[in-house]
Amino acid sequence: MSGDRLIYLPLGGAGEVGMNAYVFGYGPKGAERLILVDLGVTFPDMDTTPGVDLIFPDVAWLEANRDRLEAVFITHAHEDHVGALGHLYHRLGAPTVYARAFTGHIARLKMEERGRDPARVKIVEPLPDMVEAGPFRVGFLPVSHSIPESASMVIDTPAGRVVHTADFKIDVTPVVGEAFDAAAWEEAAKPGVQALICDSTNVFVSRPGRSEASLASEIETLVAESTGMVVATTFASNVARLKTLAEAGSRAGRSICLMGRAMRQMIEAAVQTGVLTDFPRTVSPEEAASIPRDNLMLLVTGSQGERRAASAQLARGKYQGIELKEGDTFLFSSKTIPGNERGVLRVINQLSEIGVDVIDDSTDRYHVSGHANRPDLERMHDIVKPRMVIPMHGEHRMLREHAKLARSRGYAAAIAPNGTMLDLTGEAPKVAEHVETGRTYLDGTAQIGALDGIVRDRIRMALNGHALVTLIIDEDGDPLGEPWCEIMGLPETGRSGALVESLEEDLAQFVGRAGRKVLADDDKLEEGLRRTVRNTAFNEIGKKPEVTVVISRLG
Amino acid sequence: MSGDRLIYLPLGGAGEVGMNAYVFGYGPKGAERLILVDLGVTFPDMDTTPGVDLIFPDVAWLEANRDRLEAVFITHAHEDHVGALGHLYHRLGAPTVYARAFTGHIARLKMEERGRDPARVKIVEPLPDMVEAGPFRVGFLPVSHSIPESASMVIDTPAGRVVHTADFKIDVTPVVGEAFDAAAWEEAAKPGVQALICDSTNVFVSRPGRSEASLASEIETLVAESTGMVVATTFASNVARLKTLAEAGSRAGRSICLMGRAMRQMIEAAVQTGVLTDFPRTVSPEEAASIPRDNLMLLVTGSQGERRAASAQLARGKYQGIELKEGDTFLFSSKTIPGNERGVLRVINQLSEIGVDVIDDSTDRYHVSGHANRPDLERMHDIVKPRMVIPMHGEHRMLREHAKLARSRGYAAAIAPNGTMLDLTGEAPKVAEHVETGRTYLDGTAQIGALDGIVRDRIRMALNGHALVTLIIDEDGDPLGEPWCEIMGLPETGRSGALVESLEEDLAQFVGRAGRKVLADDDKLEEGLRRTVRNTAFNEIGKKPEVTVVISRLG
Repeated sequence: MSGDRLIYLPLGGAGEVGMNAYVFGYGPKGAERLILVDLGVTFPDMDTTPGVDLIFPDVAWLEANRDRLEAVFITHAHEDHVGALGHLYHRLGAPTVYARAFTGHIARLKMEERGRDPARVKIVEPLPDMVEAGPFRVGFLPVSHSIPESASMVIDTPAGRVVHTADFKIDVTPVVGEAFDAAAWEEAAKPGVQALICDSTNVFVSRPGRSEASLASEIETLVAESTGMVVATTFASNVARLKTLAEAGSRAGRSICLMGRAMRQMIEAAVQTGVLTDFPRTVSPEEAASIPRDNLMLLVTGSQGERRAASAQLARGKYQGIELKEGDTFLFSSKTIPGNERGVLRVINQLSEIGVDVIDDSTDRYHVSGHANRPDLERMHDIVKPRMVIPMHGEHRMLREHAKLARSRGYAAAIAPNGTMLDLTGEAPKVAEHVETGRTYLDGTAQIGALDGIVRDRIRMALNGHALVTLIIDEDGDPLGEPWCEIMGLPETGRSGALVESLEEDLAQFVGRAGRKVLADDDKLEEGLRRTVRNTAFNEIGKKPEVTVVISRLG
Repeated sequence: MSGDRLIYLPLGGAGEVGMNAYVFGYGPKGAERLILVDLGVTFPDMDTTPGVDLIFPDVAWLEANRDRLEAVFITHAHEDHVGALGHLYHRLGAPTVYARAFTGHIARLKMEERGRDPARVKIVEPLPDMVEAGPFRVGFLPVSHSIPESASMVIDTPAGRVVHTADFKIDVTPVVGEAFDAAAWEEAAKPGVQALICDSTNVFVSRPGRSEASLASEIETLVAESTGMVVATTFASNVARLKTLAEAGSRAGRSICLMGRAMRQMIEAAVQTGVLTDFPRTVSPEEAASIPRDNLMLLVTGSQGERRAASAQLARGKYQGIELKEGDTFLFSSKTIPGNERGVLRVINQLSEIGVDVIDDSTDRYHVSGHANRPDLERMHDIVKPRMVIPMHGEHRMLREHAKLARSRGYAAAIAPNGTMLDLTGEAPKVAEHVETGRTYLDGTAQIGALDGIVRDRIRMALNGHALVTLIIDEDGDPLGEPWCEIMGLPETGRSGALVESLEEDLAQFVGRAGRKVLADDDKLEEGLRRTVRNTAFNEIGKKPEVTVVISRLG
């Protein structure tokens, strides 16, 4: 073992909720053999990433070291753990991807969608089976979460065992899938654990976590007491919740209709992989349209207020032949993710205008989190009894709080945001290196860097508007006519009348006064035209627009 | 009284939190004499109003009827009640504006800032004084809220008394300003009240409201136990909270420093108008920089994570010579307004990176709301005992819930979103008319309509990028050279290489193939060039950009 070391390097997920990607390495410094746990996405927002479709971790470091990458492991099928797999796989040197059956099913879809070979995803059984990957032996330890077949990773290395919880909660009655099995966890901890890499998202929630099963009776009561149509939304991947909702509807004598592609896909995956065996029979939207509304329950996508999802479309009017009416009930069996409040409130207020009774997430009666709350994190620490706790998956404030919590209870700990390479070999974690990390945007079909300036330009146009100036210079170097101006996203009228007229007047004046030296110099001419637009616009409308200048030289 | 009627018409605030503007009228149908209560703003967001500075109610209806407007009354000095006064005053025909002293002080500043005559704001004493305004007699009834000298309006009309609560809570120990005076309210209700126009913002909060005074001991304990610097943020206008915070700091032996223009302005206004008499002595930021950090407490603006406010600047680094360090404490003595979560979390995570301990709004121990919770709304209904309750100030879901609540307790009620004119004359409210309403944007110095398409174009550029095409057509109607293309906010590289090259190639092909008829027709030519850019871009990068085409015809 001489100079060999065990390293941990988060490329995504440590400093944010979402976009999980964690590298582990073992070997001589700078030549460690590597494995990657998860490769997820995060979602854009209008404030910082307008027009972007998806956000991936920047895997440049991993790409540069892909000859050292032994394998990829996917812990569960949430988008923030598997969503980037198909998009980034080709940059990683075709490693084998390991996952359990349900997760692997989704991972293969992700590969196929991007034209990658789905056969590169290998299905593995949980512990005691283990996969050899270079110096690592890796096992999938089932754990409860909000999607079927979630697993934590048990990673054996020559420097000891590492347990990577991935997302988890401690739930002994999870409705679908495996209950949290304390004995199996104690067994996994028995050999001694060098490091526990641990979910941090709910570290600020101080009450104990609640079981998925605790919702059934509340939801049943709600559905049974509702008149009119009942619509419920939750995350498409929360198969257990969908089952609870569907069973409540079924018992109340309602036909169940799934709306939204993602939801149908997840239920199909769960049925095909044997995870889900007794989901109530569903009807199609076409059939639903002819069922009396008090005999009908819709399960729909769009719990986060997404504009194109089923819930937003229903709130705006008719969707797939179904229309909500006064007296219907709409249940958010979900939590609003910070940042999505505006979209969710938009949907709720539109429903209110129709006269629909909305049960939102403020009651806490119809939703439980899939993540471990603070007391459950403490319990996890104490089951695994690691030498050190490394908080992962969470905003910086969560990582920091989790590290504090671990230290206060006698564990060594470190805050390691994305790009922080830790050496986990000794008594306590040490920062080994800082690696350049960041984000890659999927923009349409192009992948662009977060720092390329493209999205920054879009934000500037959105804030400031855009003015275009064209000027033709003839063969003799003289202006041919006057500069033209077009505006987009700017008020048409300024202090002294039409904005374009004011701009063109001042541009013409500038060109009229410009000497031959300026007229002959594209840079100077462009700069002068730009400055004129910005100054005149500021005087007229109090804004300095973005300016694009096109100078056409004839001959 | 024959055909005369009493009408109510919200132009803003009914269907949203913010932008309050309520019209009351009395007289013959269509010729009612009018008064306006409040004229506030709401704030833009990147999702729907990028680049906009402020949002006002559209007062076109009031402008068209300004010869009927008798007076304007401002209930309190919050931006969402007085912020649009200076911006819209000139459109209202120079009515007299009435307010109490502190509110009037701020209203005059708003008038001055926009070049209006501050002397048009008249200061009035609260009840029993009343102002005559056409058929109305209007009195200011003090009420507790989160800013000094808030008032409800008691509006006497030939059709009976109307009470417009404005924003309020029931607080008998408000720290600064007048306690809620139940006797005065009962007195006001005695003659019988035809309609109660009532704040709805907290109708979903089912616990009883808490007093401002209940915070003092919690805040004192927190400050006393803190080592390092203490920074607290709250709304600049919450003078009572600032006093509580400053006194806690003072008692812990700390010098108090106010940072942020809005905060200093509010404290000055409170001192000048006699509302605030015993605020602890403050030091300037320059003095503060030389005070040991554990003897210092900063009160700063930016509780909503605003990028340019003091709290965001401190979180990013140094501000006015002061720098936060590990071990300092940062208190959000405020609630995050829905929609502002991302900005607030950004600040909290930046503070976490510095090592600052953040006390956020999740504990509920260091902030109380200024609005009446559900039990306090019930109490207000029962004190005033009106014939009808008209919920105002709130999103649609809040108005709807408040109307339900009132009806369930035996009061007539109506949901009247912006633009809904109610006739309040009879036993129950009746919808009299729907008036065109909307929003006006302050964009730089220009006022633009929400539906003008300007902001829509900006959003499109932000989502899709912008491509510019220029083409010169010579005197003979032939293309002079090939079309040029520039892009902004678009990836530089597509499937087949540089995007601009692919675009220009296809544009040249289009022009080469275009017949003389197309070349001679600006509309057809422009349409063809635009379609070419959108198709080629979609093939190359999977996006269809906004396109501006400039065709220059020589001669």
